[in-house]
Amino acid sequence: MTELLNNREYKKEQLKKLLRRIHEGESVEKLKEEFRAVLSNISPLEIPLIEQELVKEGISARDIAKMCDLHVELFREAVKGTDELEEKGLPDGHPLKTLYQENKEIMKDAEMLNLYARTLATTKDERMREEILGVLEEIVSSLRMVGFTHYNREEMLIFPYIERRGLTAIATVLWTKHDEIRAMIKQLAELLGKRDEMPWEDFVERFKAKASEAAFALSDMVFRENNIFYPTLRALLSEGEWKAIRMQEGEMGYYKVNPPAWNPGVEPLHPWEINPELSVEQLLGLPKEVQQALKGQPLEFDKSELRREGDIDLGTGYVSVEELKAIFEALPVDITFIDRDDRVRFFSPGERIFVRTPSVLGRPVQLCHPPKSVYVVNKILRAFKEGRKKEATFWLKLGGRYVYIKYVPLFNEKGEYIGTLEMTMDIAPYKKIEGEKRLLDWRD
Amino acid sequence: MTELLNNREYKKEQLKKLLRRIHEGESVEKLKEEFRAVLSNISPLEIPLIEQELVKEGISARDIAKMCDLHVELFREAVKGTDELEEKGLPDGHPLKTLYQENKEIMKDAEMLNLYARTLATTKDERMREEILGVLEEIVSSLRMVGFTHYNREEMLIFPYIERRGLTAIATVLWTKHDEIRAMIKQLAELLGKRDEMPWEDFVERFKAKASEAAFALSDMVFRENNIFYPTLRALLSEGEWKAIRMQEGEMGYYKVNPPAWNPGVEPLHPWEINPELSVEQLLGLPKEVQQALKGQPLEFDKSELRREGDIDLGTGYVSVEELKAIFEALPVDITFIDRDDRVRFFSPGERIFVRTPSVLGRPVQLCHPPKSVYVVNKILRAFKEGRKKEATFWLKLGGRYVYIKYVPLFNEKGEYIGTLEMTMDIAPYKKIEGEKRLLDWRD
Repeated sequence: MTELLNNREYKKEQLKKLLRRIHEGESVEKLKEEFRAVLSNISPLEIPLIEQELVKEGISARDIAKMCDLHVELFREAVKGTDELEEKGLPDGHPLKTLYQENKEIMKDAEMLNLYARTLATTKDERMREEILGVLEEIVSSLRMVGFTHYNREEMLIFPYIERRGLTAIATVLWTKHDEIRAMIKQLAELLGKRDEMPWEDFVERFKAKASEAAFALSDMVFRENNIFYPTLRALLSEGEWKAIRMQEGEMGYYKVNPPAWNPGVEPLHPWEINPELSVEQLLGLPKEVQQALKGQPLEFDKSELRREGDIDLGTGYVSVEELKAIFEALPVDITFIDRDDRVRFFSPGERIFVRTPSVLGRPVQLCHPPKSVYVVNKILRAFKEGRKKEATFWLKLGGRYVYIKYVPLFNEKGEYIGTLEMTMDIAPYKKIEGEKRLLDWRD
Repeated sequence: MTELLNNREYKKEQLKKLLRRIHEGESVEKLKEEFRAVLSNISPLEIPLIEQELVKEGISARDIAKMCDLHVELFREAVKGTDELEEKGLPDGHPLKTLYQENKEIMKDAEMLNLYARTLATTKDERMREEILGVLEEIVSSLRMVGFTHYNREEMLIFPYIERRGLTAIATVLWTKHDEIRAMIKQLAELLGKRDEMPWEDFVERFKAKASEAAFALSDMVFRENNIFYPTLRALLSEGEWKAIRMQEGEMGYYKVNPPAWNPGVEPLHPWEINPELSVEQLLGLPKEVQQALKGQPLEFDKSELRREGDIDLGTGYVSVEELKAIFEALPVDITFIDRDDRVRFFSPGERIFVRTPSVLGRPVQLCHPPKSVYVVNKILRAFKEGRKKEATFWLKLGGRYVYIKYVPLFNEKGEYIGTLEMTMDIAPYKKIEGEKRLLDWRD
């Protein structure tokens, strides 16, 4: 017991030295080398205890944060062996490599969350508490981004490929757990925001418990992904699939990593273009857990064709003319389109605010207006064609309606003017909307 | 002079007799026959004078209105000869016959407007004034519909056919005059509404002057149309063109007539489908005034083709895929479409509130939602497919945005369910809009 205490005293002394030098601005890289032995001997369980004592002795939370970073980095180096194995052969910028890299960041932030929450619970000093709370707010707001980036990319870009192959259960289980984690982190943020509304002891106990729960769930997810989900992806997805994923990643963004460009030089392969049937090699390449889970139930491959005979390829989907007509009819906005020669070329069908009939098709827009106002129409079109204006909006009251009219110039991919779109809608109903009504509030 | 006065006294006595019998409820049809001689001898100029005297003697404005109807009807019978000539050979329900019939109604209402405005100016009795004002309000509000029906049909359905043939000037002149008349009638309505805000004498003088001006403009337009515009149409338009016009008339409606169905058994011919060149027969068939106006200037036929190679026929227009993409990108609402099998088939491109990537295409919508909320998605879809619900709407605050989400089921022309459309928009900007901003307010 004395030995253990002494040992801790020794470690604490070493850490204090380290901290002092960090505080004095010495290179972290250099310190890492020097203190590698000390730090790698401290177990994650010991850290909060030691740090808590350091905090008592008046060392700032910011300096402790730096040490924590250092510690996590050394911890990561210690487990680098397995990391290396996981990422082996994956080039920089490959979506799977990026996922592994993000998981390291998530792991580190989860550890830090737990660490600081525990430190907070034992800190008596008011100023120190505020400092730690500041760090915790940063960590929690960082962690909220995990859902928007890392999990969201998996759910939106990657799951479709395994769903097509019949592995829908994996996707559903992971998504359910992602959402649980999202909710936990949201609760932590809310709890931080409401800390002044409850006694300090209540707050700090609840926060510590919830932080530990969230940290555990986050690291548990990292474990599941690294050991089951990612190896599954590795066994199944082809270069073309990864290429398609890579092309869409930018829409969601990343968690604390910034992968370089990666181009395997193959055509992107979208979920609806793959052959979803599993080959023997693919089956044997799956992690044991997945092989086990697949036993005894037939895989339901999804072989539905996306593109049907006669479909129009709109770049972001394939629709029939029948569907297009119904879509335009259902829009909450009436549209009329004039082409690059100012002729009316299309109007949306159905009940409209301003009536349109087929007789207007092909008519120059200047002849569709009261002669008195034609000069304004021409002024707007000139401003659009010359690129001086990007929209012209109008609004007027008409009976019980509040009619909002918007004109915008349209351009093709080459940036050439190809026409102008008129959009008309009744905004009166929107002006009345208050509060919120969410999906889960729906009742039939 | 005495003779004239005596003559008027006689006519007045006859009219009083007539009125008494109208008041007692006798058949107007029978009275018409009996008083034909008397009434047909009264000139339109005399009518206000006589009626004014009758009003002084306490006869109600309603009874005078009935007599006025009778008078106009007899007047119409007197000019029936020309009417018959104009309408000769036009079957009931033919758009041109309908226009002639509406013009008779417009003529009658214009006369009544003038008549009552003049009577009002000389009426001293308070109760009688109110009664006349009531009748005038009805007439004015009726006449406002001339612009929405008769003129609007001409401007929207008929003008495109003469514009294509190069007779753009006729269309522009008529539309300008239509708008002047619209403005006059609107002013009359406003003046009636503000009568308590000014001295009676001021009001009544202004009203009389404006009513006379409007009545003159209305009847002048009837004259122009009947003698120049309609004969021009008769010389130029084919059965197919009238058929197309007839098919669209319902969108605008009619002025006090209700034409029966008319189907010449030919294919409808839209403006962009006609051969716009004038034949010699057509030129010679034009009214002298139009022939005169056309001299010395070459007719600029509009032979532009509406449908281009590769265009998609959307029923209400022809667009290229390039134009369609640009239209969807410019919409103030993001859309996502799932087909009858619940699979995502299309989403609109561009900056979106909720990100969509191609990976979602072909994915069952149930797999695109957090597993927790899938049951609600399924409930909504079931209600849509079973026809129990026509929409589901949600709204929530998201940063500075007020996001409004609307789901609607889509059906084809046979009424079969073909999918569901999700529409998402930010309504925060609409909530801030106040007042009005009209086309003529635009400044570049």
